[in-house]
Amino acid sequence: MPSQSTATKQFMSRAMSVFAANQVKTEGDDLANWGTDWTKSFKVDPLAIVFPESIDQIVDLVKRAPEWGVALVPSGGRTGLSGGAVAPNQEIVVSLDRMNKILAFHETDKIVHCQAGLVTQRLQEFASDHGLFYPVDFSSSGSSQIGGNIATNAGGIRVIRYGMTRRWVAGLTAVTGTGEVLRLNHGLIKNATGYDLRHLFVGSEGTLGIVVEAEMRLSSQPEEQQVMVLAIPELNRILEVLRAFQNAIELSAFEFFSELALQKVLAHRDISRPFSRSSPFYALLEYDASQFENANETFEAVLEAGNVVDGVVSQSLSQATTLWELREGISESIASYTPYKNDISVRIGEVPGFLEDVDSVVAQHYPDLEVVWFGHIGDGNLHLNILKPAEISIDDFYQRCHEISPKLFSLIQNREGSISAEHGVGLLKRDFLNYSRTNEEIRLMRELKRVFDPHCILNPNKLLTA
Amino acid sequence: MPSQSTATKQFMSRAMSVFAANQVKTEGDDLANWGTDWTKSFKVDPLAIVFPESIDQIVDLVKRAPEWGVALVPSGGRTGLSGGAVAPNQEIVVSLDRMNKILAFHETDKIVHCQAGLVTQRLQEFASDHGLFYPVDFSSSGSSQIGGNIATNAGGIRVIRYGMTRRWVAGLTAVTGTGEVLRLNHGLIKNATGYDLRHLFVGSEGTLGIVVEAEMRLSSQPEEQQVMVLAIPELNRILEVLRAFQNAIELSAFEFFSELALQKVLAHRDISRPFSRSSPFYALLEYDASQFENANETFEAVLEAGNVVDGVVSQSLSQATTLWELREGISESIASYTPYKNDISVRIGEVPGFLEDVDSVVAQHYPDLEVVWFGHIGDGNLHLNILKPAEISIDDFYQRCHEISPKLFSLIQNREGSISAEHGVGLLKRDFLNYSRTNEEIRLMRELKRVFDPHCILNPNKLLTA
Repeated sequence: MPSQSTATKQFMSRAMSVFAANQVKTEGDDLANWGTDWTKSFKVDPLAIVFPESIDQIVDLVKRAPEWGVALVPSGGRTGLSGGAVAPNQEIVVSLDRMNKILAFHETDKIVHCQAGLVTQRLQEFASDHGLFYPVDFSSSGSSQIGGNIATNAGGIRVIRYGMTRRWVAGLTAVTGTGEVLRLNHGLIKNATGYDLRHLFVGSEGTLGIVVEAEMRLSSQPEEQQVMVLAIPELNRILEVLRAFQNAIELSAFEFFSELALQKVLAHRDISRPFSRSSPFYALLEYDASQFENANETFEAVLEAGNVVDGVVSQSLSQATTLWELREGISESIASYTPYKNDISVRIGEVPGFLEDVDSVVAQHYPDLEVVWFGHIGDGNLHLNILKPAEISIDDFYQRCHEISPKLFSLIQNREGSISAEHGVGLLKRDFLNYSRTNEEIRLMRELKRVFDPHCILNPNKLLTA
Repeated sequence: MPSQSTATKQFMSRAMSVFAANQVKTEGDDLANWGTDWTKSFKVDPLAIVFPESIDQIVDLVKRAPEWGVALVPSGGRTGLSGGAVAPNQEIVVSLDRMNKILAFHETDKIVHCQAGLVTQRLQEFASDHGLFYPVDFSSSGSSQIGGNIATNAGGIRVIRYGMTRRWVAGLTAVTGTGEVLRLNHGLIKNATGYDLRHLFVGSEGTLGIVVEAEMRLSSQPEEQQVMVLAIPELNRILEVLRAFQNAIELSAFEFFSELALQKVLAHRDISRPFSRSSPFYALLEYDASQFENANETFEAVLEAGNVVDGVVSQSLSQATTLWELREGISESIASYTPYKNDISVRIGEVPGFLEDVDSVVAQHYPDLEVVWFGHIGDGNLHLNILKPAEISIDDFYQRCHEISPKLFSLIQNREGSISAEHGVGLLKRDFLNYSRTNEEIRLMRELKRVFDPHCILNPNKLLTA
């Protein structure tokens, strides 16, 4: 074991009044591992990692933190993309890894009462084992935790049908910055007894309290799903296609990607192009397989109208999976280009105009940069990825991207959109928050932070500057 | 015109700096009309009623209110049942009646941008005219306003399928107690840029800000609905029935009422008993008519299992309406008994045990009182109505009911339920809030109130004591 700093030694001796020795880690590898999330561009420098095993331990820690002069970073599966779980400044990382149990299942209510460290996929499996369905799903479901999902109001691929995490939080328990334990809403569907504090914690990124338990509502199991991929000749036809299908069937997903995105996936994976000819844009639709006749009729209508030029439909589960790969493989296939990623949203009706705005700014100022578009267009949520040209250094590339950010965010602001659709603010977007929230909103957020965390020990400098 | 008090004259002269003469009312009938809601047991004594026609006028009024020493009561359709819109203490009632326009329709987003004074039924009709559906519906839809629905997070009869008002609020504009105009969320589906203040205003009963505009999301039109009424032999079988049907079909409603409730409706209206024999309890189900085969199969199964003893199904829209009357006629049919009404909720699984708790307390302490139960059992929301016996005076009856309240609320507290499921707290439940919220939650609510309304001019003494 390397020699410990004075600060580390002091914390270790203090921590023993709350934790057992095996609940605290201070070694370099551990600090690096638990001190960061999927973002890799922020400084990582925690003082220690603690692994509480009870709410009482968390309360103890929170109550002593001001006196000990330490700040706390709540930590789940660390799959975030905004630095919300990064500890850059000698914080104590409070990992929920060991609070990962299902505590109760209220069958009639379809509610699972669980600890916040439960991995999303385990909740999905539990639901499935009981003939039910937990509908929030995204690529990091295998390691993200329910508490983290709540703290960021996680979205994913089926928001168009099932909404965000918020909709499934029937109750939650949080420890505030003064160490008070709030048990909010208790799984009730109807509860009109004043301000719904539960909703304040959803999406608060660990800045108001540490979510320690949740009552998650489950859904009925969906029917078998069918997947359709469509080739779309022009941007402004996509919304016509969305509308036509929404009028005919209930969609579980309506995703979109550009020809460039498809090329990157095809270059990266052993999949063949779904259509003989290329098209500037593609849409991927998912819906109940029993709706296939309505879906086919709608396809004929949009083909007739010239809004799509080709289409392919899954005839089996494995074909559905392969079609989904065209969309889900994008992130991985462009990773080697160290893309400048942005997760943004506008109202659905604003999408085509906004895409054109951005493409034109990039074309004007950065004609040598490739832009890969994809996203959940049915929710107005777009993932913008600018690829680093091979001949430019990473520093130069980031420099240019930093110039692009304010231009991009201004375009979003003009259309009343969001600079972070589902990834949160964290460290990444903190200094740009005013592009989506007014000064008065930010002032009120600060006041709310002060109410719940008067000593400013919970995830300081995330979302709002301390 | 009767002579005006000094306070009235002073307010009138001041108000002319903000409003035109025809925007202010101070006469007795008007004060009585706009100064109250559907509750009739609270003192009503407003100083004046104002009818703003713009956000600017509301901002002006709010900014001057502290200096003028007046408090403001935001007022919608005044159909509330908790006294939330009552002005008992020389307040200025701020009626949204003249801010009732639809400002924009974002077709692709299915969003209606409207002023807060829009009557619920007008939004429903607008949706229908555009081939869409606004799913929040209840008996006061013809006069309740969208702003009021948001302020109370209105629920109603189809919550089991469509959720509360909260789910349909894609954005809202509110004027805070300092006269700041917050335009929140702008109709976005995904927006992870910090605390979602929108959700704080939903259900805040006009105590944090005056909701002046909203972006309401619409749904697709549902198919034709079928209605089934079931006779249920024992209380504890109701949830078996709910579960069986939920596993087979998607329910739009699952309502419940007792034999006594049915008797009151049959005595009050010209409808015949749906079954030849009486049964202690009944359930009313609504679902997509296309699901009738699954529904019939499920009916056979629950009949076979002894969980229901009889059933009837609508074969036409008019039959469906008649069956709904059995449930919707209850409130009116018991009105002459001046019932002591309580709108409460528990988790669905707790419903049978809770009903037995209450019946046993009433039987033990008040054997001469009749209890009429009905409600939205699929949401855990029960309407408890204790009828006044003819031979007891109204004062004596209220006296006895006041004794019952703490006993009832304790039973709710034991089961982690809500003392107000959908009617709100207002004046009616304010002093009982601690049965559903902890002292720390109430303390935090007070702090939040102070952040948004530091001068305490917005609906003071509602929800929280000033």
